[in-house]
Amino acid sequence: MIDLTQIGQAAKRAARELARASTAVKNEALLAIADALEARTDWLLAENEQDVADGRAQGLSAALLDRLLLTQNRLAALAADARQVAQLPDPVGEELESRLLPNRLRLTRRRVPLGVLGVIYEARPNVTIDVATLCLKTGNAVILRGGKETLRSNLALTQLIQDALTTTGLPATAVQIIPDSDRALVSQLLRLDDYVDMIIPRGGAGLHKLCREQSSIPVITGGIGICHIYVDASADLERAVDIVENAKVQRPSVCNALDTLLVHQAVAAEFLPAVAARLAQSGVELRAEPAAGAILRAAGTAVAPTGPDDFDQEWLALILGVKVVSGLDEAIDHIQQHSTAHSDSILTNDWARAQRFVDEVDSAAVYVNASTRFTDGGQFGLGAEVAVSTQKLHARGPLGLEALTTYKWIGYGAGHIRP
Amino acid sequence: MIDLTQIGQAAKRAARELARASTAVKNEALLAIADALEARTDWLLAENEQDVADGRAQGLSAALLDRLLLTQNRLAALAADARQVAQLPDPVGEELESRLLPNRLRLTRRRVPLGVLGVIYEARPNVTIDVATLCLKTGNAVILRGGKETLRSNLALTQLIQDALTTTGLPATAVQIIPDSDRALVSQLLRLDDYVDMIIPRGGAGLHKLCREQSSIPVITGGIGICHIYVDASADLERAVDIVENAKVQRPSVCNALDTLLVHQAVAAEFLPAVAARLAQSGVELRAEPAAGAILRAAGTAVAPTGPDDFDQEWLALILGVKVVSGLDEAIDHIQQHSTAHSDSILTNDWARAQRFVDEVDSAAVYVNASTRFTDGGQFGLGAEVAVSTQKLHARGPLGLEALTTYKWIGYGAGHIRP
Repeated sequence: MIDLTQIGQAAKRAARELARASTAVKNEALLAIADALEARTDWLLAENEQDVADGRAQGLSAALLDRLLLTQNRLAALAADARQVAQLPDPVGEELESRLLPNRLRLTRRRVPLGVLGVIYEARPNVTIDVATLCLKTGNAVILRGGKETLRSNLALTQLIQDALTTTGLPATAVQIIPDSDRALVSQLLRLDDYVDMIIPRGGAGLHKLCREQSSIPVITGGIGICHIYVDASADLERAVDIVENAKVQRPSVCNALDTLLVHQAVAAEFLPAVAARLAQSGVELRAEPAAGAILRAAGTAVAPTGPDDFDQEWLALILGVKVVSGLDEAIDHIQQHSTAHSDSILTNDWARAQRFVDEVDSAAVYVNASTRFTDGGQFGLGAEVAVSTQKLHARGPLGLEALTTYKWIGYGAGHIRP
Repeated sequence: MIDLTQIGQAAKRAARELARASTAVKNEALLAIADALEARTDWLLAENEQDVADGRAQGLSAALLDRLLLTQNRLAALAADARQVAQLPDPVGEELESRLLPNRLRLTRRRVPLGVLGVIYEARPNVTIDVATLCLKTGNAVILRGGKETLRSNLALTQLIQDALTTTGLPATAVQIIPDSDRALVSQLLRLDDYVDMIIPRGGAGLHKLCREQSSIPVITGGIGICHIYVDASADLERAVDIVENAKVQRPSVCNALDTLLVHQAVAAEFLPAVAARLAQSGVELRAEPAAGAILRAAGTAVAPTGPDDFDQEWLALILGVKVVSGLDEAIDHIQQHSTAHSDSILTNDWARAQRFVDEVDSAAVYVNASTRFTDGGQFGLGAEVAVSTQKLHARGPLGLEALTTYKWIGYGAGHIRP
């Protein structure tokens, strides 16, 4: 097994150089990456083809094979994304505050790169480019650990990035990939706290749990969303049908899609059959607790009963849990108990209840009369999305480039001593 | 051994109530705590006396006995601190940003409490009041785990706090203490991620390492400072003597005190004897590497040579490592290698070198022509100091009340769906 110490040391040295690199040079590297993605398409597709062939031979599902596939269009999209990152403002160097203290020590707080990131992800090779470009833009070195199914593709993409860095005069070791799919290397990476400043896992709940439990480095976890919409007695029920449909159906495989629908008992008999009819058009399968099930069945809708863990499922599919609640208190209690604190929404025309929901639901994103699907760096106007955090430290919700930075305090004195 | 699950659940419930408490009610609780510290002095001193007697019987050092001692004056000072915290602005509820997105969804980012904190500390009972008041002010519940030497004092102080909370109508379980000094409970607390949002260790390097390695909850580590001053060839040497003396001598037992002095070779022969003479007045013991030692001995100053780890020591005492360097590059390299990224300073009149030092030294606080002793929440004007962080996520350097908060995104819509 390889020893990650050398990779860590090289990353730390590269981070020092990157922290001093000008915005112009960093952008030049990003554009060189974009150009190379287009110029070296044939080679990249050939390397990727071997990963796909191996995956097919190992019997990977069609969905997984699609995730690891690169195509000319996908490479062109990645090149466009890299050019887009080059266009974004550089957060590094911003003075977050500056003041003259009473003793005339001038104190400023300056935004600086975090240093070295470790990013652990699964089968998508596009993450390699995505993460590398966001790290470069923010002056961070990165150690990548991708899924074993795309090792060849990732090695090729990393080679391409390193060539672009060298061309631009930046250290090639600013972006390194662990060239071995031994699982023990993940544990080793999670303990590399002498060299790595932050770990970002991009994958399922199991990977996030592993990182939280094993890492001695701060971890940003997130991306798991059990999302709720509560339809209050005072909601505009026609709009509510549109919003529930949007939250569930528009892109069911993502973390901000709807998982559980809570409906006030006063409007359940009217609302549930209407929303069920709309959702049936998209083939959504309902899982209803008894009260909701009774209403739906009385209206002639076929529904399955909820299983014991159905309200603790992130469905990522066209399935929706449904529950009738006695009012706002029960809705908030249910959310506090089952939500992953990602995105939750109330549909209501009652001002006081909207305020209570916003105040009391402790999630990264809380909505009034809107779909949960808006929790996204692009939708929020952050320019780029690094990840969606459901923890509370450092950054919460959609993470933009600023989440990849920290700050330092700088005191400019003139012989200042502390009395 | 007790099970912390119930304590965790109670803390989480209390946190929900606290998050909704008004600033006025939280301040009322703080003032009730201050009043009780004065009204119940005799009882507190009697409880503390038993801890001190036990400590004496167990042969604790005089220094440690002093740390765990409460006196009437110390209680009065704690009461004054609690009243001071009541005076500070409440960070909770601040709108960090607010904008109307192009689709007219109104998006705001609101500062909210973190939730539940776990604070692990050693022998000082004053930390119990200190931490509890800062947590209450910011609407957080807290689970305290103090040192076993002060268990009786901590139980009494927590009782006093809980009585004040009850009087004010706030949940007593907002501040809980683990009533058992079994070490296994620390490990249990570090895994209580269903209920605890952040761990703050306040103690030595060993405790911080334990927390980083064992915790599945985000940890804020810090408070360990191996601090440097680099005296450049262009420095004002008279002022430099004052600054080095201040950084080393004014309060040697704290984390922002000076540990290593780096001196440019061009001024070493002039500066080292002068600074050694000044430091000798306070009984500072020098540990010099060979070049520095030769200069000092030639000038008639007795110095010890450096041991192998002397540049990796946080002295917390009147000892100073001394090294001659060839210039700024060697100084920065030495700092990158040995600093704990707490506080480092350059003394120079050269503009370009000052800028390079500020740009390249990656520490929480970097100074030009000032003592390292300024790294402190009070000195920085933050109002209160929760801890000093030497990690890069969430908050860096002196942590004020804001470090005990996070934010939520709130989207106010009117039937918004994502196209």
